[in-house]
Order: sequence, then C-alpha cells, then structure tokens
Amino acid sequence: MLDIKSIFYPESIAIVGASANPDTLGTKNFLEPFLHFGYLGRLYPVNPNYSEIMGLKAYATVRDIPEKVDYVICVIPASQTPQLMQDCVAAGVKVVALYTAGFSDTGEEEGIRLERELLQIASYGGVRILGPNCLGVHNPGARLIYEMESSTRSGNVGLCSQSGGNTKDLIATGSARGIYFSKVVSYGNAVDLNEADFIEYFTDDDETGIIAAYIEGIKQPQRFARVLGQAARTKPVIILKGGQTEAGRGAAASHTGSLAGSKEIWDTLCRQKGAIQVSDLDEMADTILAFSYMKPPGGRRVAIVGVGGGMSVQAADDCENSGLVVPPFPPEVRQELRKFNPREGTSIRNPLDASQNAYGDPALISKALQIISGCDDIDAILIMLSSRHAISRIDVREWMDQVEAVIDTGKMLNKPLAVILLGATTPEAYELVYKVQKRFSDSGFATFPSVRRAAQAINRLISYHENWEM
Amino acid sequence: MLDIKSIFYPESIAIVGASANPDTLGTKNFLEPFLHFGYLGRLYPVNPNYSEIMGLKAYATVRDIPEKVDYVICVIPASQTPQLMQDCVAAGVKVVALYTAGFSDTGEEEGIRLERELLQIASYGGVRILGPNCLGVHNPGARLIYEMESSTRSGNVGLCSQSGGNTKDLIATGSARGIYFSKVVSYGNAVDLNEADFIEYFTDDDETGIIAAYIEGIKQPQRFARVLGQAARTKPVIILKGGQTEAGRGAAASHTGSLAGSKEIWDTLCRQKGAIQVSDLDEMADTILAFSYMKPPGGRRVAIVGVGGGMSVQAADDCENSGLVVPPFPPEVRQELRKFNPREGTSIRNPLDASQNAYGDPALISKALQIISGCDDIDAILIMLSSRHAISRIDVREWMDQVEAVIDTGKMLNKPLAVILLGATTPEAYELVYKVQKRFSDSGFATFPSVRRAAQAINRLISYHENWEM
Repeated sequence: MLDIKSIFYPESIAIVGASANPDTLGTKNFLEPFLHFGYLGRLYPVNPNYSEIMGLKAYATVRDIPEKVDYVICVIPASQTPQLMQDCVAAGVKVVALYTAGFSDTGEEEGIRLERELLQIASYGGVRILGPNCLGVHNPGARLIYEMESSTRSGNVGLCSQSGGNTKDLIATGSARGIYFSKVVSYGNAVDLNEADFIEYFTDDDETGIIAAYIEGIKQPQRFARVLGQAARTKPVIILKGGQTEAGRGAAASHTGSLAGSKEIWDTLCRQKGAIQVSDLDEMADTILAFSYMKPPGGRRVAIVGVGGGMSVQAADDCENSGLVVPPFPPEVRQELRKFNPREGTSIRNPLDASQNAYGDPALISKALQIISGCDDIDAILIMLSSRHAISRIDVREWMDQVEAVIDTGKMLNKPLAVILLGATTPEAYELVYKVQKRFSDSGFATFPSVRRAAQAINRLISYHENWEM
Repeated sequence: MLDIKSIFYPESIAIVGASANPDTLGTKNFLEPFLHFGYLGRLYPVNPNYSEIMGLKAYATVRDIPEKVDYVICVIPASQTPQLMQDCVAAGVKVVALYTAGFSDTGEEEGIRLERELLQIASYGGVRILGPNCLGVHNPGARLIYEMESSTRSGNVGLCSQSGGNTKDLIATGSARGIYFSKVVSYGNAVDLNEADFIEYFTDDDETGIIAAYIEGIKQPQRFARVLGQAARTKPVIILKGGQTEAGRGAAASHTGSLAGSKEIWDTLCRQKGAIQVSDLDEMADTILAFSYMKPPGGRRVAIVGVGGGMSVQAADDCENSGLVVPPFPPEVRQELRKFNPREGTSIRNPLDASQNAYGDPALISKALQIISGCDDIDAILIMLSSRHAISRIDVREWMDQVEAVIDTGKMLNKPLAVILLGATTPEAYELVYKVQKRFSDSGFATFPSVRRAAQAINRLISYHENWEM
C-alpha cells in the first residue's frame, strides 16, 4: 500500500514532457521552479528529443532512469499516456501525477475510455494515479513549489483541491495575508487518489493543524463520511464545495468530470460531521486566518474600535448580521473611555469611534484597547484602521506608529483581537495595507479587508468551538 | 423658501473657524481644498484672531462680511454656535452647515438643548441648517471639494449621506472605479434639512441620473415615503440604511442622534416604493456601477467567460446564488467555440473556460465574445481577467492587449458586458488592476472585484427594470 507521505516528500521526480524551451508547460510549471527553489530530491527530465535539459541529463523514457522513481509528473498529450503508464509500471514508479487533461473532464466517450484504461494499467501494475487534470503536489518543506512566484514558507495548513487554479490562488492570497501551508495537493479528476486519501493523511499529519479542501464531487461517499468525521474531531476542517447550484454542477462536470450531488445532502453531512463550510476562496482564506491567529473567543460578544461614525454603524450591523453580539459597554468602561475621547462627534458606546484620536497619539489607542480588554462583557475585539485616512490626513510614519501600538498592546491583551485594514482604493494605499498586513501576520494577528468578512470568520471560529466543546 | 440649488452652487461661502494654521479643521477640510481646486464663488474666512488667512481677508464675525453670504460653514465649538446663528440671522445668511458636533449626537441633555436652541434661532430668523455634525456640500461642478485627494470630475450620481466618512469613502472608491458625482451632501444630525429635501431635489435635478443615499433615521416619515416614491419612479434610488440591527441602531443614535426604526418597516417601504436596497458601501458602489455602465439586460441569463476550471465552477455558483441563470450554450455555439478552444482542460459549456487562450491571442477572446453575444439564449456577459496570471505567466504588455481587445469588442456587442478583475494580491498586481480598471471605466465598462459582487449588482439592475417595466 502507498504511503501518502511519499507523494509529499518524494525522493525522486521524473518530469515527462519537460523540454529545453522554458515556455513549455512541463518546464515552466515544474522543472524550472523545482530547480529554482532547490527541490531536495533527484530530478529527471524525460523527453526523447533531448540528452540534456536545463543542465540535467534527460531520459528517453521513464524506463531508462537508473532508479525507481517515486513521483512522475506527466505533461504529454492524453493519447500518449497509456504507453507512459505501462513504462511506469515496468519501472516500479510509485505515483504518476497527470497534469495532462482530456479524460473524463471532456465528458466525451474517448476521454472516459482513456481514463479507464489508464486506471486499469495502473491498478494492475501497482502504480497510484494523482489526477489526471491536476497540478499535483506543492510542498514548501520539500522545496516542491508550483510556480516561480509561490511562497516557500511552510505553515500548518493542509490543502487538497480538485482545482489547480484554486490552489494557486489560495497560495498567492496566503502569501499576502499570512497563510502558509504544510502541504498542498491539486488532484483534478480524482480517478484514483481522492479527497478521502488526503483528508485522512492530513488528520494524522503532525505538520498540519488546519485542513482545507476544495471539492467538486465525492468519489467514495461512505469512506468520505467516515474520514471527514474523524478529521473534524481531530482538527478544524474547512471545506469549499464547488457545484452547489445547477449551473455550478454542470461546470464541475466539465471541469473534473465530477458528479457534484445535492447541496442539501452535502450541508447535512458537513453539519453532522462538524466540518466548517465556506462559500468561496475569500471566505476560506478569512476562516483559515481566524483559526490560525485568533485564540477562540469565550463567547459572541465583540467590542469594535472604529474609525468614523458611519463606519461604526456599519460595523455594528455587520457583526450582528454575522451572528455576533455588540453589547453597549458598561458605564464604568464608558467613563474610562470618556476621559480621553471628546464628547463631540465620538461615540464610546460600542463601537468606540476612535477616529478623533486614532490618528493622533498611539498611546490612546493602546489605552482604549486595554480598557476594553478588561471588560468582562466582551469576548473579542475588532479594531479598524484606515490606510486612506493615513495617506490623506496624516503622515504614514505616524500611522505605522499606531500599527506598532496595536501590535504591542494586542500581544498583552487577554482577549482575541482581529485587525480590519480599510481604504485600499489607490495603489499607494494598497501598498501600505500590504506592508501593514504582513507586519500584523508576522506579529501573530489576523487581518481582514472588512468588518463583515472578519465577523463571518470569527462567527465560524466561535461556532466550531461551541460545537466541539459542548 | 430656500432653493436647494443655492446650497450646491453657493455664490459665496464663509468659513467660521478657519485659521492660518493649515492643520486646523476649518482650513484643512474646507478653506484649503476650496482654494486649491478654485471654488468658483467668493470665499470669506471668519476668525477674530486674524486679519488675513491664506491670502484672503479675514473677518471677525459673519456680520462684518460686506455681502449676504449664501453658505456658512461652522467649525467652532458647539457652545459658540448660538451666537454664530444669531449673527447669521442678522447677516441674512441662507444656510449654515455645521461641521461642529456635540449636539443630539452626544445623547446628552445639554447637547439636545443646544441643538433645539440653534434650530429655534434659525427657523425664526429664516436661516436653514445643514447638519450639525456634517461635512456639508461637495460639488465638483462648483469646485467645492471636501479633501485635497478628492476627485474633481463631475458625474451623474447624486449622493446624500448622514455620515461624512461614508461620503468620503464612496468618493474615493468612485475615483478608482469610475463613479462620479453630480452633487454630494453630508447632512449629519439632520435637525433641519434632511434626506427628503435632498432626494426631492435630486429627483428634479437634470445633472443627477442616479440617486444614492446613506440614511440612519428618517426625520419626516410621511413626507419621506412620498418623496421616495416620486424619486424611484423617476430614476434609480439606491439606499444604504445604517442601523438595521439592535447594535447598529444604538450606534446610529450615538452617531447622529437618529431613531433608526425597524428593519421590517424599512424593507417594506423600499419594496413598495421601488427603491433599491444595498447592505454596505461596496454593494452601493457595485450597484451604482452596474446602473451607470451597463445597458439593462433583457433577462437573467448570463454567459461567463472564465479563467480556470475551479474559478468557472465558483462563478457559476455565484451567479445562480445571486439570482442569475447560467444556461448551457446551445450546441451550435459550443461547436463554434470548440474550433479554437482545445478539447483538453477547457470547458465550453458555459462558463467558457478561456484560460488556455485568454493569455495568448487577443483575437480569440474577441471571437469568443462575439460568438457568445450572438447567442439568443444569453442576456448579458461576464468576463473574468486575472492580473495574477498576467504577472506570473505572461508579459503585462500582452495582458494589456487582451484588455484592449475586450474593450474594442465590448463596444460592438449588442449585450451588456461586465468585467471582473481578479488577483490583486500583491502591490504589483494591484497597480495593474487599478490601471486597467480606469481604462475600462473610461471606455464605458463596469469592473468588479469578484463574480459574486458583479452578479449581485447585475441582479439588482435586472430586478429594477423588471419592477418598473411591468
């Protein structure tokens, strides 16, 4: 039986279809980044037209490689894959990951037949298949990196996804917002290895603290239900289900040949097993961030430190509409806050509208956070910072002092803190937000682009802990 | 009776509390931008401590100004405002806009009393009040601009808002995404002039094609209902209601002293009158864009031109969950699309996954758009473009060629087109998106940051036309 670990940490890799032309897919998507980031194992380009590719000896077929290769990446036309699979069986390969598409994803008879043929050869010969129609493994720990721009930093999120594009998008978003991965696998049509295999592996994997999955269709329903239950009992499992609508199911069938199944059955399964559902990649990133960076709040009562009156009203509405509670601060807290918040134009009710001092003295922001954090009626704190205000009203340097004050104080608080970074509407403001976002995540704080998105993620975090601690 | 037009086009303005110190509020928020952008009327700083401010003659009181001033901006402490109001009555001022807060917004007896006193003096003396606790008027056409960074371009959106911060945020978002204003007014506590006055004015204003409003509480319910009905029959009225939840209502009371009322009554009112509700400023911007740039679709059937399989599945789900329909293309359309979309790894079902050719030949994107636009089963087209792909996979110049191809083709299509710009996760990608966004809006196309947000806005556009054309 295959040890899934050898997929994530292969000792040797062959790339079938790599070429000396850097624009070809095998070279661009695999060979070049593997070399660039210093993949820790042995690398074999396979292409009968070359004797050498990018400084590596090239082989005509997989059979010619002088060792049993762990992981073969296939980037040749679908019609040539049965021959390759036979070569891989003969050469004692463990896993073949097929980037190649044109199988059941076409919805056409020939593709479906070809996929069946591949599976037959592989099963009979003891080779496992990843895909087809997938990017395969991305594991920073083994220096196995998809693209030249991907982050090389390891983290604690294990991600499996039927879509390669979604893995790349989440890796890119993660690099900006502070989400790092233990392992990522794009598994496409899932003709052999499927979501159950990876979720099962992540459940026992010490490097993985949070499991994330993008799934279009379930291959082994009963096994999946069992694996999901076991996983969710062990660590947070965050799932994005593609194909929740009629049109989405049609698109999923065209994408990975998946039968998406009904939304109702899926919802029930997730609820019963305690998995956390999200409805798009943004929500997935937000939820991962909340689980990664925030201590679980003791309850649903949040304090909001806002910038401006209208924004504060919106923040209160967004929190309550997302399942959180925004209680008025008790009189003694208001009394303390009033000492340094002017009566005119600033509310201290909750939300605290700190716009009058938020861009003045960083010490006042710290003081407000400390006072609020000491309040027994509050379980978590959301603080809003606006880059647009920073750029238009005050010196950016001054704003960075505020950021540092929030970080320093936030570390001492006994309540979880979420940071909302607003106003990235110009390249200048976006660059500032990008920098500050990094500063916060490096310091252990989650950032969100809106109160609504923060509140929805925090609501999922609270629900998860309520669910499992009852 | 006051002609509201004289608020938006005042012939003279006095700024009470302006000073020679550029960091003081009266100077920074009003005098400096008015001078900088070349306000078309006469400008009078009022401050007893100066004889000259920023090159203008300063006056000790409003009474000393040698003409009847149309519009007085008050930036002095609340305690001094009754005296100012008496001066304004004596001087025959038309409108006093009070930036000053500390009235009913404090929720305290003294503030409420002071507000009542002000109103009494003003009503008795024939002066109208804007605010208090407001930014007042922003009208690019009169070169009356709030902040140094605001856009000076006029457009067709009339915005009234109880929150000054919200007006500034929407103006900033609008500058980036292509929303321009005929008139903007921030009216705060609405002790005198209120939402009904402005919506009524915008209804008859030829410069205003779309009315947008941020409202926390209604001052004259019966009049408001009548005015709203009349407005919505005349042009689209897009409303964001602050204080939809218990906590939001509390925050609204602290912000503008508003009684927010129940969400149910509000929902019913908007439905009956045909006003379009949104739930935050992002949705407001999205909806304004759809109404500004898109021809009304003839129905709910959309085509999606996507980038990548997972993204296409998500796009289909997002559209259908937002009330749109994503029908499979008929066989003859698929046949046409198949001619230049490879069988492997690309769906042509709808969504069309154009990732294989989207970053190659711009002519193919044009061809796909033309084929889809010719299909009778489709009412509108959404096209996704990814800046991340542009930066990581291909030359940016090449991507810009794609953008130009979409613009050129889009202009010839007989179906409305929405552009979704994805992947702004790095400063480099954001800068590219910012630039392309501007290029699209200058060419007459709406852009959105996600399919979900586009679909929700388009759904509102369709519902509006269904509602009023039945």
